[in-house]
Amino acid sequence: MKRQAYLKLLPLDDALNLMLATFSASPLTPERIPLNQARGRTLAENAVARVSSPAFHGAAMDGVAVIAETTFGASERRPKTLRVGSEAHWVNTGRPLPAGANAVIMVEDLTPGQTADGKETVAIEKAAFPWQHVRKLGEDLVATESVLPPGTVIGAYELGALGAAGLLEPLVFRHPLVDVIPSGSELMPLAEAGPDRLAAGDKLPEFNSLVLSALVEDLGGLAAAKAIVPDEPELIRAAILNSVRGPADLVVINAGSSAGSHDYTAGIISQLGELLFHGICLMPGKPTALGRVEGKPVLGIPGYPVSAVIAFEELGQALLAHWQNRTRPQRPQATARPFAALPSRPGLEEFIRVKLGRVEDNLIAVPLPRGAGTVTSLSRADGIIRVPAPTEGLPADQPTPVSLIRTPNEIEGALLAIGSHDNALDLADSFLRHRFPGYRLTSAHLGSLGGLMALKAGRCHLAGSHLLGPDGVYNSAAVAEHLPERPVKMVRLADREQGLILPPGNPSGLHTLADLARPGVTFINRQRGSGTRVLLDWQLKQLGLSPDDLQGYENEEYTHMNVAAAVAGGRASAGLGVRAAATALGLSFIPVGVEEYDLVIPLSYWADPRIKALLEVITSSEFKAAVAALGGYDLTANGVIR
Amino acid sequence: MKRQAYLKLLPLDDALNLMLATFSASPLTPERIPLNQARGRTLAENAVARVSSPAFHGAAMDGVAVIAETTFGASERRPKTLRVGSEAHWVNTGRPLPAGANAVIMVEDLTPGQTADGKETVAIEKAAFPWQHVRKLGEDLVATESVLPPGTVIGAYELGALGAAGLLEPLVFRHPLVDVIPSGSELMPLAEAGPDRLAAGDKLPEFNSLVLSALVEDLGGLAAAKAIVPDEPELIRAAILNSVRGPADLVVINAGSSAGSHDYTAGIISQLGELLFHGICLMPGKPTALGRVEGKPVLGIPGYPVSAVIAFEELGQALLAHWQNRTRPQRPQATARPFAALPSRPGLEEFIRVKLGRVEDNLIAVPLPRGAGTVTSLSRADGIIRVPAPTEGLPADQPTPVSLIRTPNEIEGALLAIGSHDNALDLADSFLRHRFPGYRLTSAHLGSLGGLMALKAGRCHLAGSHLLGPDGVYNSAAVAEHLPERPVKMVRLADREQGLILPPGNPSGLHTLADLARPGVTFINRQRGSGTRVLLDWQLKQLGLSPDDLQGYENEEYTHMNVAAAVAGGRASAGLGVRAAATALGLSFIPVGVEEYDLVIPLSYWADPRIKALLEVITSSEFKAAVAALGGYDLTANGVIR
Repeated sequence: MKRQAYLKLLPLDDALNLMLATFSASPLTPERIPLNQARGRTLAENAVARVSSPAFHGAAMDGVAVIAETTFGASERRPKTLRVGSEAHWVNTGRPLPAGANAVIMVEDLTPGQTADGKETVAIEKAAFPWQHVRKLGEDLVATESVLPPGTVIGAYELGALGAAGLLEPLVFRHPLVDVIPSGSELMPLAEAGPDRLAAGDKLPEFNSLVLSALVEDLGGLAAAKAIVPDEPELIRAAILNSVRGPADLVVINAGSSAGSHDYTAGIISQLGELLFHGICLMPGKPTALGRVEGKPVLGIPGYPVSAVIAFEELGQALLAHWQNRTRPQRPQATARPFAALPSRPGLEEFIRVKLGRVEDNLIAVPLPRGAGTVTSLSRADGIIRVPAPTEGLPADQPTPVSLIRTPNEIEGALLAIGSHDNALDLADSFLRHRFPGYRLTSAHLGSLGGLMALKAGRCHLAGSHLLGPDGVYNSAAVAEHLPERPVKMVRLADREQGLILPPGNPSGLHTLADLARPGVTFINRQRGSGTRVLLDWQLKQLGLSPDDLQGYENEEYTHMNVAAAVAGGRASAGLGVRAAATALGLSFIPVGVEEYDLVIPLSYWADPRIKALLEVITSSEFKAAVAALGGYDLTANGVIR
Repeated sequence: MKRQAYLKLLPLDDALNLMLATFSASPLTPERIPLNQARGRTLAENAVARVSSPAFHGAAMDGVAVIAETTFGASERRPKTLRVGSEAHWVNTGRPLPAGANAVIMVEDLTPGQTADGKETVAIEKAAFPWQHVRKLGEDLVATESVLPPGTVIGAYELGALGAAGLLEPLVFRHPLVDVIPSGSELMPLAEAGPDRLAAGDKLPEFNSLVLSALVEDLGGLAAAKAIVPDEPELIRAAILNSVRGPADLVVINAGSSAGSHDYTAGIISQLGELLFHGICLMPGKPTALGRVEGKPVLGIPGYPVSAVIAFEELGQALLAHWQNRTRPQRPQATARPFAALPSRPGLEEFIRVKLGRVEDNLIAVPLPRGAGTVTSLSRADGIIRVPAPTEGLPADQPTPVSLIRTPNEIEGALLAIGSHDNALDLADSFLRHRFPGYRLTSAHLGSLGGLMALKAGRCHLAGSHLLGPDGVYNSAAVAEHLPERPVKMVRLADREQGLILPPGNPSGLHTLADLARPGVTFINRQRGSGTRVLLDWQLKQLGLSPDDLQGYENEEYTHMNVAAAVAGGRASAGLGVRAAATALGLSFIPVGVEEYDLVIPLSYWADPRIKALLEVITSSEFKAAVAALGGYDLTANGVIR
């Protein structure tokens, strides 16, 4: 079978319109279901009240029901006595008035008594006006009135309105049924993907079908995740045919739609039916394909998780919404300033996942990793910036629209930390959220110097930093140099052991930084501006070594953990980083020194309640115990303020 | 048993803090569940990656895996040939690289060949650089790294991150269990509340437990709606004890907490345990009570549906969120201008439900009925304005915060119609949403003149009007008088029959408007400024009658349907309104004339796409057929523009 080149890249809107036009008719037969099963379903009718609510004139207070006219003339000086049972009738809140009654007098305004012959009476000192304390028939709803329009998603409030209207069996769309077919010989079922099996390194765990099923359910659908189909055209063809001939309304085949040699989906769709498009101007998500097979839509979406999500949200969810005559849940919009320029390939509309923080009235957007394989760029994102197809990207700091994944309140409660990466910051976020719901710590890892520069530009609330100065003191010199006009405090988070991160058992027998210059040793470095890089360069200088003496000096990673991963995966035979990263991956570690890790906080935020909360959290004994358990931290100086 | 006076009205925040302090410890034992059942659950742990993702260096393209260094020197002029199986290994996207390989060359860049002895080769014209087209181990996640903080609600993206991290059994909070006990002798189960039973007019349908259960489920809880308990202290006591001794974490008793004679809840809580508060400065929701019985929280909330919802959202949902270490879903905030002054009782924080529309850059808020019994004021609301307790209300037009119930996009897509009520407007909304998803027609019923005044003040997009002029022509004179500086177009929606709405069979034998002056006849009027009122006054004048001649002239309703309901419920023996309203409730109708109902649209909105869409909808044959089916409409002049 020949490889399938992209037919033509369609703009996203064109793809959407073509899809909606082709599959305009909804296959979702409406059905009547009991109201107590209707939560989350979508109304298929203009719901019209069967009964009025309330269906009778009822008491709005506990007291007696009367004919108002019979009370006229009552006053403090001339109270009027009403006979219970004929002129006045006890009635409780919510109960119907007796026929003819048109007012209620509150129990508080009644003086009980009795007639000479022992019959119960009540005396009143004020006349009732007609319809006082009466909940009138139809006050909320009149029978035949429209209650809710079609396309309404039924939630708590709607259940109340339908219940009040006597609509005990609303007409709703049946659940859309979606088959999700994962395809690819490189995949194994998630249930088999235990740590041992993953460590074997032969297959990737298949979790996209779980994610796609949740996206189907978010739109009121029911998803069937099918078995993984290997990269064999016959098997893929059979799986598609099996699904389109089954109950599914929409068939999603995941992976197999890019233009690689094993990407058969588009070709198979062409053979089995009609290929509507293959390739859209969307990143991630470009290789998306859509066809019609035996009358049903077959959507081929790429295998990388972020591509799969974005393609399914933009197309699959749109189709499910259309069939149910409802709108897709839409994210609130805001205006953010990109922290850095966001270059993007012209001709593709790019969805960039960003972290967000409100700093000095500006919403700052820090981009997350842009690879289509980084599913955490979705779970960690606060928002998404769409870079329009015609542009080459967005300049830094230019106000730009962003769709919010978190609620505006969550974003306003976030402290944006930019700077050096430390595992303890993730812990601080956990502890902060737990102790102060509504607050969170959002961090972006741009190195110590990157953090100070962000503080200088007013683009973060605080910066984690461990920059060794020429005087051998941490952070003071760098702060003095880069933030001369911005008074700050430095709060010690911890002292950390830095050292050589080595494969388990230290097979190359390295013992000092000088050993990195030995032939055959490959090093993995941190990026320029990181505290670890500064430490390395300082130490190399002390040893009389130059960067050229280290093989791999030019290969950079952005976090301690990624340095450790590079060593664990055999990309390098040594790196420099904190002990916690080595411990985490079961690697060997040889200390080369202890460094001071400070949180640098501008005085202007010192009184901010979120900063106060953070400082309370990071100096708590629970937090310190949790950090100590990571290994390689000395918390003696924790909380020291300079 | 004595009536229970409110102990003391607590501010809402104080009530909330007291509740959270008293029930601070979460009863929700965490549990491990399979990942594919985790959607909607809340993480009870700091989720830390068990494995790296990917767990190996894998191919990011289909092609051959190589050791980059062996390809150095290849060029177009001096291609290099690699032996497949030793120097190059076929590899598909996502599959692991063979040990030692550190780059992938795309299949597109390979020229297949073979050696003299028939072994497979590939030729390349360009060197590979190290790690090209490789998805590196740990690129997305490194084992032991924090993936998601505790308190995260697991949705589609989080399922992806947990799956990638090998967390196949995340630790989540067990579902909070909530017993909802409806109480009140006036209630009947919803299942019994068919139209016949409701028409019998003896009991109210109990739908609050359905609404409250949905609100529990919205926060990840499981609700058990218990049987209705009559207003008898022993039975209420037994129901509470039964629930606190069962599995429920929170017991909600609905109704029975106001200060009326049958409101026993607070007293029973005091007897069984400790009453923390009874009565909060909240409207609707004032009579809310909270206590502790056998260690468990018992929340008594009022019976009126809007009170029940607001009290449960503000307290019950807050407690469920706290126990799961998560934040409550928060509504986006916006700034709106109240259409009219919103008076409010000082000392109570009032939640006013409003309709919203963006008109000339201002978000206009039109209040919905404020009664605690109008559940449709929630289902129809676009937002909620909170009037702070210390104030006497909010002045008209003053920018004020509003919580949005609809998404901002839905609100921006809404046309705000203010003016005369007509059932056909509800139909127009249904048709508009169906044909133009994203657009909606929001109407507020303030009478024809109210609509023109709103147009004049720039507070709505269009107005429905049927104002008979002194010249006998509809709307022209009123528009000329009230909108001299605002050019508008008038589009005829329909001609409507107006007439006497009478009890079935016309028992009083009324035949003309003059008969309304007969002794014993009680009239129900429409409000000042409504077209129907203008028509009545005009006709009375023609007949030489004065308002004083009609008994009930001073009793006003705001819609045709409410006039019909007043007649149907025996509050009046005649009203004036459109035939559709009489037909809807099975009432008699005697026409007194035909009137013209126009949509008055400012020229400045004439080109607005929403207006264009609306005009397309209301002149469509489907819409006209649906309106004709209501009865009493003549659509001959539909769409005529003046």
